[in-house]
Amino acid sequence: MSETAASKRLSKWLSVFGQALKRGDVETAASMFAKDSYWRDLVAFTWNIKTAEGRDAIAAMLEATLTSARPEKLRLDGAASEADGVTEGWFTFETHVARGHGHVRLKGDKCWTLLTAMNELKGHEEKAGPTREKGVEHGSRKERQTWLDRKMAEEAELGHQRQPYCLIVGGGQAGIGLGARLKRLGVPTMIIDQHERPGDQWRKRYKSLCLHDPVWYDHMPYLPFPEHWPVFSPKDKIGDWLEMYTKVMELNYWPSTECRSASYDEKRREWTVKVRRDGKTITLRPKQLILATGMSGVPNLPNFPGARRFKGVQHHSSQHPGGEAYKGKKCVVIGSNNSAHDICADLWEHGADVTMVQRSSTHVARSDTLMELGLGALYSEAAVKSGITTEKADMIFASIPYALLAGFQVPVYKQIAERDAKFYKKLEKAGFMHDWGDDDSGLFMKYLRRGSGYYIDVGASDLIAEGEIKLKSGVEVTEITPKGVRLSDGSELSADLIVYATGYGSMNGWAAKLISPEVGEKVGKCWGLGSNTRKDPGPWEGELRNMWKPTRQEALWFHGGNLHQSRHYSRYLALQMKARMENIPTPVYGLSEVHHVS
Amino acid sequence: MSETAASKRLSKWLSVFGQALKRGDVETAASMFAKDSYWRDLVAFTWNIKTAEGRDAIAAMLEATLTSARPEKLRLDGAASEADGVTEGWFTFETHVARGHGHVRLKGDKCWTLLTAMNELKGHEEKAGPTREKGVEHGSRKERQTWLDRKMAEEAELGHQRQPYCLIVGGGQAGIGLGARLKRLGVPTMIIDQHERPGDQWRKRYKSLCLHDPVWYDHMPYLPFPEHWPVFSPKDKIGDWLEMYTKVMELNYWPSTECRSASYDEKRREWTVKVRRDGKTITLRPKQLILATGMSGVPNLPNFPGARRFKGVQHHSSQHPGGEAYKGKKCVVIGSNNSAHDICADLWEHGADVTMVQRSSTHVARSDTLMELGLGALYSEAAVKSGITTEKADMIFASIPYALLAGFQVPVYKQIAERDAKFYKKLEKAGFMHDWGDDDSGLFMKYLRRGSGYYIDVGASDLIAEGEIKLKSGVEVTEITPKGVRLSDGSELSADLIVYATGYGSMNGWAAKLISPEVGEKVGKCWGLGSNTRKDPGPWEGELRNMWKPTRQEALWFHGGNLHQSRHYSRYLALQMKARMENIPTPVYGLSEVHHVS
Repeated sequence: MSETAASKRLSKWLSVFGQALKRGDVETAASMFAKDSYWRDLVAFTWNIKTAEGRDAIAAMLEATLTSARPEKLRLDGAASEADGVTEGWFTFETHVARGHGHVRLKGDKCWTLLTAMNELKGHEEKAGPTREKGVEHGSRKERQTWLDRKMAEEAELGHQRQPYCLIVGGGQAGIGLGARLKRLGVPTMIIDQHERPGDQWRKRYKSLCLHDPVWYDHMPYLPFPEHWPVFSPKDKIGDWLEMYTKVMELNYWPSTECRSASYDEKRREWTVKVRRDGKTITLRPKQLILATGMSGVPNLPNFPGARRFKGVQHHSSQHPGGEAYKGKKCVVIGSNNSAHDICADLWEHGADVTMVQRSSTHVARSDTLMELGLGALYSEAAVKSGITTEKADMIFASIPYALLAGFQVPVYKQIAERDAKFYKKLEKAGFMHDWGDDDSGLFMKYLRRGSGYYIDVGASDLIAEGEIKLKSGVEVTEITPKGVRLSDGSELSADLIVYATGYGSMNGWAAKLISPEVGEKVGKCWGLGSNTRKDPGPWEGELRNMWKPTRQEALWFHGGNLHQSRHYSRYLALQMKARMENIPTPVYGLSEVHHVS
Repeated sequence: MSETAASKRLSKWLSVFGQALKRGDVETAASMFAKDSYWRDLVAFTWNIKTAEGRDAIAAMLEATLTSARPEKLRLDGAASEADGVTEGWFTFETHVARGHGHVRLKGDKCWTLLTAMNELKGHEEKAGPTREKGVEHGSRKERQTWLDRKMAEEAELGHQRQPYCLIVGGGQAGIGLGARLKRLGVPTMIIDQHERPGDQWRKRYKSLCLHDPVWYDHMPYLPFPEHWPVFSPKDKIGDWLEMYTKVMELNYWPSTECRSASYDEKRREWTVKVRRDGKTITLRPKQLILATGMSGVPNLPNFPGARRFKGVQHHSSQHPGGEAYKGKKCVVIGSNNSAHDICADLWEHGADVTMVQRSSTHVARSDTLMELGLGALYSEAAVKSGITTEKADMIFASIPYALLAGFQVPVYKQIAERDAKFYKKLEKAGFMHDWGDDDSGLFMKYLRRGSGYYIDVGASDLIAEGEIKLKSGVEVTEITPKGVRLSDGSELSADLIVYATGYGSMNGWAAKLISPEVGEKVGKCWGLGSNTRKDPGPWEGELRNMWKPTRQEALWFHGGNLHQSRHYSRYLALQMKARMENIPTPVYGLSEVHHVS
């Protein structure tokens, strides 16, 4: 089919679909979807992040949202294309209150996948390009306020005389990226963080840490990395970038500030948040509370018998400062995911005697291979060259419903297995328990489902294969002795240092800690799709639990993920905040049930 | 003529010209130029910034440079165009050591203007995009140095155990933009600046200061302003941006450091520079010394009789902190250029009683009109939309030889005069002496010729027209009395504050001050074209004196200008540094004679 024919087909579908929506004809609209079909909506129709799966669910979603959304003006945006029987293309649309961008895939004349995403609220567009501010007010006026006057006044007032509309707890990349979007939308926002300086979230980690995702995947909103930025940012360099970002985006950021407690006043519809800043307790009263404390939530510290008696140093991986002090020392790392590998390699590089304790199987993908086969089509120099901007890549990625994603991933990992067959053979020969995920869908699905269970190899696997990092696999820790770690095979590893690279709990652990255990339970588990695979129990959710969307606790939000997710989904979270601040009706469709508390 | 025909004509000219160059046939090559023709070379052929005017000069330049430059591979880049009998287009070319970019305008089959500009040195290309660094070294090695280790080691060593190749005195936008380019080229560079923080060069000026040039004109190298950046940056905001830039570009920058003296050792071909840092004197021994201390050079403090007896506050405009302290006070501002206007308006806004003393006529252009008619075609939102990137705009601008520029500007200012006729009438009615430059070529030519003599109106002119800022024009200052200013018409202005907005000397004043009066005289006047107009005495130079190119003092360089010039010409200055560091032969053609010492 030619490009023109594909465009015609898509335009026609959009036109008929648009007309059905306009006249509220749910039956016709739903009938235009295939039996197996998916409509993913990012805030535009549902004021939620929601995928309706199948005609019935789509009809139900339309039934509930059409009257308030009032969609119109669905127009093909650019040329459509056709391959393997699927016609696909982009479109723009409007709702009663917003402008949006969408993507559609047709099989024959029926819709297979539909993405609708809100772009901006009408009347509340961000000022940029031709609408940017002038910066100076020409003409003369007595007692003019300069940019600095206004900035200093805002800094002095916000959190004291004037309350922020949003409070973001956590000033890492997620918190400040969202903060930047809210700033551009004119939503008064305060970001608090316990570290002394923005970027310390990275700087204070172990010395050899670098981003595991490549630069094209990692851009912050509004201010992309320059062309010479390295592929994998070293931790201190990304720390400096984030500090600079906080400054030039003019964010209201309180460093060295700890959130002590938060409670919601249902009547006043307002939070009371106690924070500790420079030794003083300050009470903030934001309307919206956003936890951006890291998608990994609270560190999981295992409760091994005997741990208190251990005479050496022991800490969670998140507290590990790096290997400088451990030259010639015996170090045991419990765990076999990313952090465990990074820390083992770093200890080895510093001349320590390192043993990794692998308790369950782990998926490993070599960084180079993963970048090329896993991310290359959307996030790479080649993608940039072929016109796939970051924004476009994010939208293409978002257009694939999670229900289909695992299926799309399986062949990628098959290819990875083939290309790196020798590598995997070597690794397994060394006794490393390796898997490809419950359904062979590999690393990214593990990330989405459980946020763990994998290592992006940047060198540690070779050390394991060569015996430089010693490996005890298929064992459990039975107890910690004064001098080391006793394992389920009866052996004992003597240790000067034990690192518990045992992962993190769900983010709602933060809600339990800061607000109350009841609220933690009420909102339930964060992250995961309900795929009914290991550590991601069903039922099927179709979207990440509680992320970037309304939760069971009014005015409580979770924000985070990797740099790509934080960048892309901060847009929708920011629009949800702005709409609420402006009293634009935001009827939420399909608020999820809570099936798991952690 | 169609686009294809234009491209064919240009390709043909390039091909024949290229062949003539290749076989060293200067006569044929020169004959391909029109009688009135211009070849502007930015470092590619001449290792200088040089315009050869007319066939004979072009032939002489070719005669001298062809053997070493060895140009080849002249290829049309993109489509050519034709309008009003001029065919023009872009091309790429190579020399023996470099790759370049050029622009040509033909009248008929003869070349009218030619631009050749060096882009990069072969074998020393900047790493960016597909060649960017990886950031992390995959694999494992004992005692790995991280990014931070290397950065800290460099900071600790440079200027102490290890000498910088380049020393840049002055860390404003010019110094750090050049520093960034040198960093990308791997040239060890130290930037020193007397202020406490990068950006203080702006922050410490009077409160209401904003950039007078628009954002599209002001981008720094590598890191463009984001889309929402205001059109005219307020001083503190640009200060923060420059501070961030210094950090993320990883420049070696010593703040609070003053250059005390410098001398050149001809034998060792090295500078001895004494700097004062944190109360200690440190001796630096760079191979190249770059003065980026502001194109305006040393402040001109007039020597009016009686000034010592004045009982109020008096200072040069560069020292003026803003009007906060002068509410209800009598203030006299001597001068009528940009700073004088800004300071008068700022004082008025703070409730002072302000008089401007205009000693000679001044050109005024309203900011909005100037932005639209003067800069809009190259540096505006519209230009960005039509595909004119900053780099392209810089090159288009550079392609017009200075000898033609005044002629190109006259109609622009005629249009400005018509559009703002009422404004000018009002201003003149208030007694303001207004001019359009000696040849009606307006503001930008005044800037290039003398760096003074104009005001970009952002509101002060209305205050003058309305009598809110009082004006004494056509008078000279005869003396400063204890209580005010006596003028040549016999009147006396009483004053609590006198601001001398009396401009700056030539940049070689810095060389005289830091190195020696002899070196100041040897290199001679900086800036200006030799146009034989007011404050720009002849003979005609065809390029700005001493800027960004070799001077009569070996290893001494001047860098500066507005943000556009600093951005664009820092490229050529950086390439000159890199070539010298790498011992690439850099035979300089046409080093200018010195005709004026200041």
